[in-house]
Amino acid sequence: MLDNLEKFCNLKRDIAEINIDPLQRAGILTPEARAALLEWGDGYSVCDFCAGRLDLIKTPPIEEFVHGVLPEFLGTDEVRVTHGAREGKFAAMHALCEKGDFVVMDGNAHYTTVLAAERAGLKIEYASSSKEPDYAISAEGYIQAIERAYEQKGNVSLAVLTYPDGNYGNLPDARAIADAAHDYSVPLLLNGAYAIGRMPVNARDLGADIIVGSGHKSMAASGPVGVLGATEEYAKAIFRLSSTKKNKEVELLGCTVRGAPLLTLMASFPAVVERVRHWPEEVEKARWFSAEMEKLGMSQQGERPHNHDLMFFLAENLYQISLTAKKGRYFLYRDLKERGICGIKPGLTRQFKLSTYGLAREELEKVLQAFGEIIESHRPA
Amino acid sequence: MLDNLEKFCNLKRDIAEINIDPLQRAGILTPEARAALLEWGDGYSVCDFCAGRLDLIKTPPIEEFVHGVLPEFLGTDEVRVTHGAREGKFAAMHALCEKGDFVVMDGNAHYTTVLAAERAGLKIEYASSSKEPDYAISAEGYIQAIERAYEQKGNVSLAVLTYPDGNYGNLPDARAIADAAHDYSVPLLLNGAYAIGRMPVNARDLGADIIVGSGHKSMAASGPVGVLGATEEYAKAIFRLSSTKKNKEVELLGCTVRGAPLLTLMASFPAVVERVRHWPEEVEKARWFSAEMEKLGMSQQGERPHNHDLMFFLAENLYQISLTAKKGRYFLYRDLKERGICGIKPGLTRQFKLSTYGLAREELEKVLQAFGEIIESHRPA
Repeated sequence: MLDNLEKFCNLKRDIAEINIDPLQRAGILTPEARAALLEWGDGYSVCDFCAGRLDLIKTPPIEEFVHGVLPEFLGTDEVRVTHGAREGKFAAMHALCEKGDFVVMDGNAHYTTVLAAERAGLKIEYASSSKEPDYAISAEGYIQAIERAYEQKGNVSLAVLTYPDGNYGNLPDARAIADAAHDYSVPLLLNGAYAIGRMPVNARDLGADIIVGSGHKSMAASGPVGVLGATEEYAKAIFRLSSTKKNKEVELLGCTVRGAPLLTLMASFPAVVERVRHWPEEVEKARWFSAEMEKLGMSQQGERPHNHDLMFFLAENLYQISLTAKKGRYFLYRDLKERGICGIKPGLTRQFKLSTYGLAREELEKVLQAFGEIIESHRPA
Repeated sequence: MLDNLEKFCNLKRDIAEINIDPLQRAGILTPEARAALLEWGDGYSVCDFCAGRLDLIKTPPIEEFVHGVLPEFLGTDEVRVTHGAREGKFAAMHALCEKGDFVVMDGNAHYTTVLAAERAGLKIEYASSSKEPDYAISAEGYIQAIERAYEQKGNVSLAVLTYPDGNYGNLPDARAIADAAHDYSVPLLLNGAYAIGRMPVNARDLGADIIVGSGHKSMAASGPVGVLGATEEYAKAIFRLSSTKKNKEVELLGCTVRGAPLLTLMASFPAVVERVRHWPEEVEKARWFSAEMEKLGMSQQGERPHNHDLMFFLAENLYQISLTAKKGRYFLYRDLKERGICGIKPGLTRQFKLSTYGLAREELEKVLQAFGEIIESHRPA
């Protein structure tokens, strides 16, 4: 087993020219981040001049980035770098909730929110979404979920809102949900893994007490890396210091991203700030793309008009094709790949999600043309 | 604050030609790992063909690496990839111990072991080390620590051994300590952050039930990335599946290193396996270096003859110089840097650690010559 290892040495990615995977669209590195990877690639390189804590390192200027720039960018008091959004959610739950407490979350929550709660020993009540095709999340749903937890004599110590969710790309009224949670003295954690780095997000304006984002998902960073922000009130508990190890933050195990991913987050950051300013154009592009897909016989689910680049489509026509096509349900993956497009999971036809983020109109026209050709080419003679 | 961000774009490392930092010596990337960084740098790139779980991805061949190669390399039943040794320790403690339990660890334990225990709500009893200059850890110390916990009516659910420790580079008799712990039905976690990837380590042979290693510290990987292995008995709990999210491992929050660091670990792995075979030469080199340093008036602490490249020195002569030198205690850092050497923390003179790992004799001779020159140049006229 340990004798034939060369195969691990020179692995190449096999992806198409245009990648419409929502998970990957906003994680593509800037040229600056690629350069940072090489410059800081060696293990523990960021620790060259560390005096004991990652977020306080001055060379490179991590302290300024973490304590100056990120709190302003996120609109919150304190920020730390994490391994990703899920690790940030767990840290917050682990610090703020007691085992057996309830956490309330939207019915569209990412699976990692559920896992974080399970790992922290928490019970879950869901604020259920409305029915198809909207799958909308409302403040009323949170109120009902909190009330249900109370009926079980539960202690609700946290509410989580996925903003937007990773299935439909819906952006619920976070402010209203925060107000509802606050009426019950429950803090709100905003999961902005698909928002922060793509669109303007300000935790303060949205009423979020805690906020998490993902570097590799939406901030043009090489993962795993993320951000975790909190108001002063909650930062105290989440970033509490060790009782025995001076200056070390317990919930972060001292330091989190002690390597190159953090430097890629920093290197891409100016470009990320700039692209966030162009968010209205991204929304407009997504809406146009959605309308064109519907002309081809597919149906966009979730909010309409849509407010995010992540979109979910029902495609009964593609499903019908899959019933008789060569390779069956894998035909769509193959036919798109032949046309230089990837990012829809192999095997999916009847429903799938995609993202238009950061793609030029011409590229999206190529995607639309591909769908059109594929549908046409499989039309019964 | 968000207007002057260009400074984060093009940050350069400022390090000397020869880096003797124990934290960094074995984390320097191979050329293959550097290529992997660029190939797989984009966020979530390893997830191109994921069916839901990181460790089961076939393209790239992560499944074969994690389920085939790593268990053999570590001599254990089940392995997963983590964000690093500390995250592996916390996962094991969180999965195997109840809040309020005792964990027993060596007095030389890394601060992150203490933080992991604190985060998991555990009490600590230390197996104290012998006095200077050895700082040796013994099975007897573990027995006493367990007995002390019992006297407090505590439940001891885990023992941790640092192998070697990060201060003195001591390699205790792990087998004897494992046997002692097992006599009390306490599993042993071996923290091999400074061993795995440098020297031969086989969990089974050493009697370790759980083992953690660090990719960025000792496996020529770009961090953060690490390995967590366990025998079948303990793997069941540590890698338990979610009760609601199919196939997702709770303690890992589904997936851990969903990015390039894992591919660097894989790309460097053949070279790592090869260098482990040359460990006896590394030990010999360390012993020779230690003897030469002592000829210059410094005194190596910890095991003698030494069995690891990480060494701790007392340098009363350098301390005396610092009392009158220009720049005071920073003179050593400056004088070494001028001679192309870095890796001893700025400000340290009286005691410091360093590593000879992977350095050629000629490079180490340059280091010795530098120490000699520095001592000579500060000799009172």
